[in-house]
Amino acid sequence: MRLAVIPGDGIGPEVVSEALKVLGEVVPTAEITNYDLGAARWHATGELLPESVLGELRQHDAILLGAVGDPTVPSGILERGLLLRLRFEMDHHVNLRPARLYPGVRGPLADAGDVDMVVVREGTEGPYAGTGGLLRKDTEHEIATEVSVNTAFGIRRVVADAFNRAEGRPRKHLTLVHKTNVLEYAGSLWSRIVEEVSLEHPEVTVAYSHVDAATIHLVTDPSRFDVIVTDNLFGDIITDLAAAVTGGIGLAASGNLDITRRNPSMFEPVHGSAPDIAGQGLADPTAAVLSVSLLLDHLGQKESARRIEASVAFDLATRDQASPGATQAIGDRLAALVSSNVRTAG
Amino acid sequence: MRLAVIPGDGIGPEVVSEALKVLGEVVPTAEITNYDLGAARWHATGELLPESVLGELRQHDAILLGAVGDPTVPSGILERGLLLRLRFEMDHHVNLRPARLYPGVRGPLADAGDVDMVVVREGTEGPYAGTGGLLRKDTEHEIATEVSVNTAFGIRRVVADAFNRAEGRPRKHLTLVHKTNVLEYAGSLWSRIVEEVSLEHPEVTVAYSHVDAATIHLVTDPSRFDVIVTDNLFGDIITDLAAAVTGGIGLAASGNLDITRRNPSMFEPVHGSAPDIAGQGLADPTAAVLSVSLLLDHLGQKESARRIEASVAFDLATRDQASPGATQAIGDRLAALVSSNVRTAG
Ligand SMILES: CC(C)[C@H](C(=O)O)[C@@H](O)C(=O)O
Ligand SMILES: CC(C)[C@H](C(=O)O)[C@@H](O)C(=O)O
Repeated sequence: MRLAVIPGDGIGPEVVSEALKVLGEVVPTAEITNYDLGAARWHATGELLPESVLGELRQHDAILLGAVGDPTVPSGILERGLLLRLRFEMDHHVNLRPARLYPGVRGPLADAGDVDMVVVREGTEGPYAGTGGLLRKDTEHEIATEVSVNTAFGIRRVVADAFNRAEGRPRKHLTLVHKTNVLEYAGSLWSRIVEEVSLEHPEVTVAYSHVDAATIHLVTDPSRFDVIVTDNLFGDIITDLAAAVTGGIGLAASGNLDITRRNPSMFEPVHGSAPDIAGQGLADPTAAVLSVSLLLDHLGQKESARRIEASVAFDLATRDQASPGATQAIGDRLAALVSSNVRTAG
Repeated sequence: MRLAVIPGDGIGPEVVSEALKVLGEVVPTAEITNYDLGAARWHATGELLPESVLGELRQHDAILLGAVGDPTVPSGILERGLLLRLRFEMDHHVNLRPARLYPGVRGPLADAGDVDMVVVREGTEGPYAGTGGLLRKDTEHEIATEVSVNTAFGIRRVVADAFNRAEGRPRKHLTLVHKTNVLEYAGSLWSRIVEEVSLEHPEVTVAYSHVDAATIHLVTDPSRFDVIVTDNLFGDIITDLAAAVTGGIGLAASGNLDITRRNPSMFEPVHGSAPDIAGQGLADPTAAVLSVSLLLDHLGQKESARRIEASVAFDLATRDQASPGATQAIGDRLAALVSSNVRTAG
């Protein structure tokens, strides 16, 4: 396994180092190459993602990213020049974001129930296409447009992926989240494609929720969701909310997948670089470790993936929630659990 | 006061009738004209909002709407042909949505704190402009676009309104919610205008939150928000979430305001027509009553507006939460509280 690692900024390097420790327990032979991208490189050289680096990244089986971002870099630069550029260049069309409330974890809801969902967020089009512009800038008649671009090709492949995932889960339930009553063109295309693809999956039950109503359900009845499929922007919003409901972005992992496998997929914790706590051993590496589990699952190493997730579940159920330990201590615990080979309750 | 009333569908007429009962206690001389718009009229005549009705509505000081919608009408028809059409025709640029967790009300959060915010949602542009289309429909190469249209004119007037409101509140705090790191054109225009207008309001502190992070804050720390200003679509999403956090859309009121007063403003509960419980006296008219309070406030009858809100607060604090009573009983209680003229704790 050839793995490219982008530790990034802030707590990125700290959590990545624990994630690799855990990976080492199941794939000791992984070949790891580090790529120095993020705020520091941009400050030093002005580079965000040089073509040569992009070419090298493509030679790997997968990419693990820690976190990117620093208050010294103007908003949008690293996001668009590095994070989103990677997603678009690598055709990461399925942005996979599981949200599970693990036993022992207390989220903000008084009574969340049994939450175990996965959001399949489209990753390469919609309002993220970057199409738009400014007219009459800096005058009182200025106009800004943003164009959401939605293609049958782009939607069908993520909808198909979402149905496949739903089919492999016990509840076999899929919810399309959109805003079809207002965004009539994109809404119509998404709805028609979900309907079409559903014909190939008669055992999957299909529901629809407007994005505004979905946010209500996520806080009043999150256990209703199994697989959600949605567009890039709605997915951005509801996955942060779903992460909050299941204990916070400190625990949320994500995969940016090219389902065709033409490009390496990229795995990253949903959290950011948290510069305020960087370098102090305060960051919880759990989301990075769960990202490694998603990575292994994507590469077909299902058993190792499950073992890591089960170890995380065990640790979350048994840790002292008030003081779960330092970054390294959590990483050590998880590595030991994984290596102990014990099948803990997942 | 000349008031146009659109009772609408489902529970709309029931909750409007209680709201008018309460209004009668403070403005017994209000002249009320009912307009029959909604699902029933569309089924009977195919009409959604005839020009003649639009003309008549304009002759009023304000509009009170119950709820519109029925499962027998295809999604989008009433929304775009009636609700959104009213907002656009009447230039309802400020969509005002307070979210307050009243004492005695239990929301879904284990520990919500003291929530009292107001969202100023832009109401006449953004992704709601209806600009977009389908290309190569029903082929595998189909493309759907949605264009978010944002004008300096349109943004400035709602931002100015939001700052004015912030200035009149104890905390004097304003948060812009957007997604400036991705939607760079619209984000740039919104940010620059907030910065400009803030210079005229040095006493108002200004914060910024990406919409995805805002959903996290709304469930982990909602009391941080005072006034939120945001675009039409983000406002749609976060006001539903804010309503859920403060006890549900059954309690949430809204105003669609033309700040210039060229057109009558429209007030409506955030909830829908709830056809499943229609006609059974099960609907809580509180959101409709609070909409009347917003209406009176907008028309300058501040004292009456406050009295109604205080009565609602008193009722919510003292009612049997498990069985608050039938629609009419709640309306009777609120009317009696309002008429008793007692200044209850607001
Ligand atoms: C950082 C930002 C560009 C990104 C996004 O909007 O997709 C982030 O919020 C995420 O969800 O991964
Ligand atoms: C019904 C729908 C068109 C409307 C909107 O999206 O604005 C509703 O969700 C609201 O928030 O008033």
